[in-house]
Amino acid sequence: MTVAEGLGTDILTSLLDTIRFDDRGLVTAVAQQYDSGEVLMVAWMTRATILETLETGRVCYWSRSRGERWRKGDTSGHHQWLRGMRLDCDGDTLLLLVDQKGPACHTGRRSCFFRAVDGPSPGAEVEPLFQSGAPTEQSVGRL
Amino acid sequence: MTVAEGLGTDILTSLLDTIRFDDRGLVTAVAQQYDSGEVLMVAWMTRATILETLETGRVCYWSRSRGERWRKGDTSGHHQWLRGMRLDCDGDTLLLLVDQKGPACHTGRRSCFFRAVDGPSPGAEVEPLFQSGAPTEQSVGRL
Repeated sequence: MTVAEGLGTDILTSLLDTIRFDDRGLVTAVAQQYDSGEVLMVAWMTRATILETLETGRVCYWSRSRGERWRKGDTSGHHQWLRGMRLDCDGDTLLLLVDQKGPACHTGRRSCFFRAVDGPSPGAEVEPLFQSGAPTEQSVGRL
Repeated sequence: MTVAEGLGTDILTSLLDTIRFDDRGLVTAVAQQYDSGEVLMVAWMTRATILETLETGRVCYWSRSRGERWRKGDTSGHHQWLRGMRLDCDGDTLLLLVDQKGPACHTGRRSCFFRAVDGPSPGAEVEPLFQSGAPTEQSVGRL
């Protein structure tokens, strides 16, 4: 039984109805490693990719640049497994608690947030490359 | 000496120039408690509110609903102090490492992400009220 089946259609529909998608049908999603608390990336989801994520347990986003579903890890093998999903108070942002295999960032870093704007070394990269020569996502540029 | 002064005008300008603001001049900002890792809220910033945040050390957002600066905690007293700021790989999202005093959410909860979409109790509230009768922000509704 999938997660979505487990939820039951009525509950799931009513939960999805509380999400405030923008005029493009998108909602912001923050992915956080469920155990370490690392904020890994921010991307976009549609109602359909949320459903797919709940049904399969593998996180699926919407790529704005390619205009298509983007099942995280299909190219790189660095899958994101869903451990929990939360909605914020005004319903326009999701927090995904995930188990990220390998780097989340297409640059090969664990987190996309590797550039420091302030701190001891402003402008410095604060995230090392996760694995030299690691395969990366096709999702370069604007997601 | 403020953080912004410490950075130097050239470095700060070049850092701010790497941020990709949308056509409204806004960039998404994720606020995370710097020590516990809690994701507290997601809001918007402009170039001016980023500068104010760096200069004062107190986080200042842009309220889309009110069309004005929103210095977190001015109404509620629940200030957010900046401990670090990072930019993501494609330059359109900031991660703020903050020290949040009291609840971050205008509903009185520590985090805005208090509604579970999946998990053992879908639809349940997973964040308790931080403090009964706590003063809340004026920022109800869409930020």
